[in-house]
Amino acid sequence: MGSVFGSLFCVSTFGESHGKAVGAVVEGCPPGMRLTESDIQKQLDRRRPGQNDLSTPRSETDTVTIYSGVERGLTLGTPIALMVPNRDQRPTDYGDMTTIPRPSHADYTYQMKYGIRATSGGGRASARETIGRVAAGAIAEKFLRERYGVEIVAWVSGVGEISAPQIDLNSVSRTEVDATAVRCPHEEAAAKMAELISAVRDDHDSIGGVVTCVCRNVPAGWGEPVFDKLEALLAQAMLSLPATKGFEFGSGFAGSAMRGSEHNDLFVKKGDGLGTRTNHSGGIQGGISNGEPIVLKIAFKPPATIGKDQKTVTIDGDPVVLQAKGRHDPCVVSRAVPVVEAMAAMVLADAALCREAICATRYPSGR
Amino acid sequence: MGSVFGSLFCVSTFGESHGKAVGAVVEGCPPGMRLTESDIQKQLDRRRPGQNDLSTPRSETDTVTIYSGVERGLTLGTPIALMVPNRDQRPTDYGDMTTIPRPSHADYTYQMKYGIRATSGGGRASARETIGRVAAGAIAEKFLRERYGVEIVAWVSGVGEISAPQIDLNSVSRTEVDATAVRCPHEEAAAKMAELISAVRDDHDSIGGVVTCVCRNVPAGWGEPVFDKLEALLAQAMLSLPATKGFEFGSGFAGSAMRGSEHNDLFVKKGDGLGTRTNHSGGIQGGISNGEPIVLKIAFKPPATIGKDQKTVTIDGDPVVLQAKGRHDPCVVSRAVPVVEAMAAMVLADAALCREAICATRYPSGR
Amino acid sequence: MGSVFGSLFCVSTFGESHGKAVGAVVEGCPPGMRLTESDIQKQLDRRRPGQNDLSTPRSETDTVTIYSGVERGLTLGTPIALMVPNRDQRPTDYGDMTTIPRPSHADYTYQMKYGIRATSGGGRASARETIGRVAAGAIAEKFLRERYGVEIVAWVSGVGEISAPQIDLNSVSRTEVDATAVRCPHEEAAAKMAELISAVRDDHDSIGGVVTCVCRNVPAGWGEPVFDKLEALLAQAMLSLPATKGFEFGSGFAGSAMRGSEHNDLFVKKGDGLGTRTNHSGGIQGGISNGEPIVLKIAFKPPATIGKDQKTVTIDGDPVVLQAKGRHDPCVVSRAVPVVEAMAAMVLADAALCREAICATRYPSGR
Amino acid sequence: MGSVFGSLFCVSTFGESHGKAVGAVVEGCPPGMRLTESDIQKQLDRRRPGQNDLSTPRSETDTVTIYSGVERGLTLGTPIALMVPNRDQRPTDYGDMTTIPRPSHADYTYQMKYGIRATSGGGRASARETIGRVAAGAIAEKFLRERYGVEIVAWVSGVGEISAPQIDLNSVSRTEVDATAVRCPHEEAAAKMAELISAVRDDHDSIGGVVTCVCRNVPAGWGEPVFDKLEALLAQAMLSLPATKGFEFGSGFAGSAMRGSEHNDLFVKKGDGLGTRTNHSGGIQGGISNGEPIVLKIAFKPPATIGKDQKTVTIDGDPVVLQAKGRHDPCVVSRAVPVVEAMAAMVLADAALCREAICATRYPSGR
Repeated sequence: MGSVFGSLFCVSTFGESHGKAVGAVVEGCPPGMRLTESDIQKQLDRRRPGQNDLSTPRSETDTVTIYSGVERGLTLGTPIALMVPNRDQRPTDYGDMTTIPRPSHADYTYQMKYGIRATSGGGRASARETIGRVAAGAIAEKFLRERYGVEIVAWVSGVGEISAPQIDLNSVSRTEVDATAVRCPHEEAAAKMAELISAVRDDHDSIGGVVTCVCRNVPAGWGEPVFDKLEALLAQAMLSLPATKGFEFGSGFAGSAMRGSEHNDLFVKKGDGLGTRTNHSGGIQGGISNGEPIVLKIAFKPPATIGKDQKTVTIDGDPVVLQAKGRHDPCVVSRAVPVVEAMAAMVLADAALCREAICATRYPSGR
Repeated sequence: MGSVFGSLFCVSTFGESHGKAVGAVVEGCPPGMRLTESDIQKQLDRRRPGQNDLSTPRSETDTVTIYSGVERGLTLGTPIALMVPNRDQRPTDYGDMTTIPRPSHADYTYQMKYGIRATSGGGRASARETIGRVAAGAIAEKFLRERYGVEIVAWVSGVGEISAPQIDLNSVSRTEVDATAVRCPHEEAAAKMAELISAVRDDHDSIGGVVTCVCRNVPAGWGEPVFDKLEALLAQAMLSLPATKGFEFGSGFAGSAMRGSEHNDLFVKKGDGLGTRTNHSGGIQGGISNGEPIVLKIAFKPPATIGKDQKTVTIDGDPVVLQAKGRHDPCVVSRAVPVVEAMAAMVLADAALCREAICATRYPSGR
Repeated sequence: MGSVFGSLFCVSTFGESHGKAVGAVVEGCPPGMRLTESDIQKQLDRRRPGQNDLSTPRSETDTVTIYSGVERGLTLGTPIALMVPNRDQRPTDYGDMTTIPRPSHADYTYQMKYGIRATSGGGRASARETIGRVAAGAIAEKFLRERYGVEIVAWVSGVGEISAPQIDLNSVSRTEVDATAVRCPHEEAAAKMAELISAVRDDHDSIGGVVTCVCRNVPAGWGEPVFDKLEALLAQAMLSLPATKGFEFGSGFAGSAMRGSEHNDLFVKKGDGLGTRTNHSGGIQGGISNGEPIVLKIAFKPPATIGKDQKTVTIDGDPVVLQAKGRHDPCVVSRAVPVVEAMAAMVLADAALCREAICATRYPSGR
Repeated sequence: MGSVFGSLFCVSTFGESHGKAVGAVVEGCPPGMRLTESDIQKQLDRRRPGQNDLSTPRSETDTVTIYSGVERGLTLGTPIALMVPNRDQRPTDYGDMTTIPRPSHADYTYQMKYGIRATSGGGRASARETIGRVAAGAIAEKFLRERYGVEIVAWVSGVGEISAPQIDLNSVSRTEVDATAVRCPHEEAAAKMAELISAVRDDHDSIGGVVTCVCRNVPAGWGEPVFDKLEALLAQAMLSLPATKGFEFGSGFAGSAMRGSEHNDLFVKKGDGLGTRTNHSGGIQGGISNGEPIVLKIAFKPPATIGKDQKTVTIDGDPVVLQAKGRHDPCVVSRAVPVVEAMAAMVLADAALCREAICATRYPSGR
């Protein structure tokens, strides 16, 4: 269990970091949509390792192939199988792993759960698993953009203690985000972040960061009440990413210090519907979108693999000094940007389909 | 969709705030467990309105009845239906609601989704819906406590700008929590919080807050990888609660400012397994519990219903001044404590059952 | 697990035969639909015991109450909780049950699965569980009828060796079906069936039978491919009913003896779409409805409770002679008629919602 | 929706008949199990076309590759991705298909549902989709056999009007089944069947048939009550196969003509538990296995593709004479044998995991 996400737009991923391939099966993509590998490759390229000297040197082109669900460039409404081969597998990099669980990795917990684990790399817990998500998310995003004009843009808003100043949520674009290697649209902050990441890397250490994401043009009425509130599924989606530690939407934790008279988003007329004067609600009220931008913030911890010695114990409890040798990023947030966008897209595409089912069948009664 | 939670320990809730009743159906509770209404009533009483002058005066005893799934005081392994009648319904309190969507409530979004909504109170978006969750959670908790010794304790760690100092996660108990009306186990902080809530109430306003929750004695190996990581389901569970804005586990957002060498939880021998020296991981690594305490933090916004005039618009966009008249809490966190505990219990009970299925069937090979 | 059915139109039932109540929660009913208890009661009355001397004398009015999801006579799109109290509980009727598992009942298997079972009656395996299904099905049916003009009619087509001659599938109505106590629209066959049931009852025995069901005006395009084919879900739905042993649709087992040239349903123009000359397909091709009537046939075994002595063994394997004392029907098919209709309605309502989600989102490309 | 099956042992398939590949993802296989491609290939070879002159000449080796979930020959507990490339694609064979929906195929209904369909072959409705099922089923079966000694054997019990005499359910083996090309373990009947199939083929026609399946050594206590009864999921599984028209277990339709005193399976002591004297229940009582052999019968219609002219209409309703040109079997039942076994294995593996979850967590109270 655990590798399936979504109800109507349903994605399942497969693949270990050092197995033959990673991939995804996407079920529920609306039929008749134009789709080619290049629609997907674009986001995979943004996630790919080795894009610049801030990320891991693992050498992978991450080229995706569509194996089903598409004919003559059009989706058939049937499951779309996507696969990316693992080329640069180096099982020997992880020699000690069988006896020494790496601190703050998933080695120990997988062993306790399954009684066995991939002997190389993080297996399913590896960031390589997110390839399937990015591929699936690119499909979700294409549908959302074409049908509803939904725009999803994520960026790095913090690295270590460095925070980017407030970005204009209504205009920030992927072009602006990709203008810097760090993927922070505020140039000055980006420079400081890059500097910090380089320093941390040279220190054989790693550093955490924060990704912010805005989803624009989401129509009012998406999301389910109670357990599947839109924010709840977005929280699940984001916290399901490796290395995440926290999630906020709208006012977030800061909202807990506010008064109702200050926090309430008063309604105003906007176009032929209603909008709100402020957006502390982060675009969602009672689990359902209200038409305002959906704004999310996700905290990522520093990568657990570092180049420093670590005093830990073997699986039998014997003291040992561990020197990690795998290839990893000093900071994950820049490459996490397309992954966060993918997860947001998957949640929203599912919500869109659920909404359409209700809109098409609800009775015209009531207001 | 949206009213069902969990895969093996599966809870669905029903009921509107001003309908005949609210309740839940719990499927998957292990058979043969002793269970009576009093096991459940205890937590419902902690959630109940009107416990003291810090909460809404709505008068409800919230008495639960078990309608199925239990015979002669033992669970049968079949669905347990639980119901609490709504006694103090006051539909007339909400006269304007049909034309004026209340700011930062779910009125507008429900209308946009369903084309109709409960004419009184929050319907499904009301905090009364959480009664079913608390009832179901009490059952989950009983199983977790009896079978694994799991202890779940939540408390108010923040109200407005007031934060409680660090509480001892290994010892904090419900007795300590319930010692103050605010439910903050730090007496001094609790007094300040109570004062603030009273002041806010007298000002016809409301205030947000933070609930922290610790789950102790969770065995290593619970949780699923990828999309259903333990932290992902906990995030979904908590963000599915009304009025929540953020979620953290372990180091949370603070962890994003840390370095790997500082954040990594080095392993040490503990009992006949491994433990960690620090617990920045918050008891979960790679989506699976590692045996250390699971620590969560949830941000709640200030209640949207306030006694002040609000300049908003009608559903047609016409300017109007809204004076709210419903009965509501100036601050929800104290009553949210048992609800947070219930959600944590539901997630963990489900993880426990999933784990047992694997443990009972995995091959003895591997380590 | 096991008490939930459907994905978008989702029904869960609860309740043991001799507990406080039985009922259902229906999630996914389109919002804004007129619904009162009387819409549901009608079908419950057709299922109710004691309607005539062919059925069990257990005295129950089976009066349903709606507890949520409906306000001022309109559905809200939220879960509809339905409950029917058990009035005529007679736990003492089943004194021996704790030590002697009744032959061909579920006593032994429930004990083996759960390690415990309801000490009276069939618990969840009782036919009383179907009350929740009938109530939920009545809601599904109302939606199908109002929105699409779908008509579902089931009847008794066989009792023991007696089979009704071919009924006109295009015209058969519930009025015709209810014209006889047996619920066979062929008067002559009905008389013979009634005679046989009376004879069997007087002989303290029981007898099996067959129910046929037709669903008219189902639009083309309902149903999912592969595992959730419309016929597959209908088969699951019907085989989930107590006492069923077989399922056919269209040509059924007889079709296995036919040649393709004879079995193929050639297309003809019908209205503004296509129809078929014959209907060996039973209204479904490749798992998806084709617009022709959907025709099902379900085999029911003779009730396991009989008034004759049975030489069996106790749970410990000791030989014993069992004399059953519970109240049961000599033949279940007449009362099964509304239950079969309910299951068909639940499957079709779910298929309708899934279809609408696709229709509302598919691209206009392709034909 | 529709391409996923099972809750704990969960299989999803993908792939169109003339796309790049077909395959499956299996989630929930117990970790630590030895597994290689050859464990799977064996059953694929039994399903493969072109095995002899009774089946379609489409030339495919159907060689499976495992892409994930297995390392060093052991399952990891993570999703197992399986793929078989389509080699002998001949899109041009189906030139007329875009305008003429083939009678009793899924062309018309897919078009009505999706507004688009695979232009060649049956797409998802093709029998090639069952490759993923057979591959997944082989994994399920290996687990069932190794852990519980479960034996699943299916065979052809009928072709056209020819029925095999009663086979010994306790001893029939795959070796006996595979002794004839028809896969009927009764030599004499097999010869007649082969003769009939050849005659039908020479007549450019097709013929239906019946497959019987026995599952031995299934422990008592597998299966869920109510909607997910073991027989209900088996019925869904079998009716989800292309070309099926009916399903029976135990006494089946014949049981509907029997009396209770004759049909009831009296208990007897067997080993250290109970067994039954007869097995009209077909190994399942109240939806849960009772330890006796589970016996199923599935009706298959004659393949819709025939070499004869068919007077039908185009998608626009214009009369046309269709001459089919695709490559197809005159009778599908022989190749359906491993597919039926696969579906039975998938249902039982899922039931096994669900059972273990309950057994590991139920309280020792009760009997």
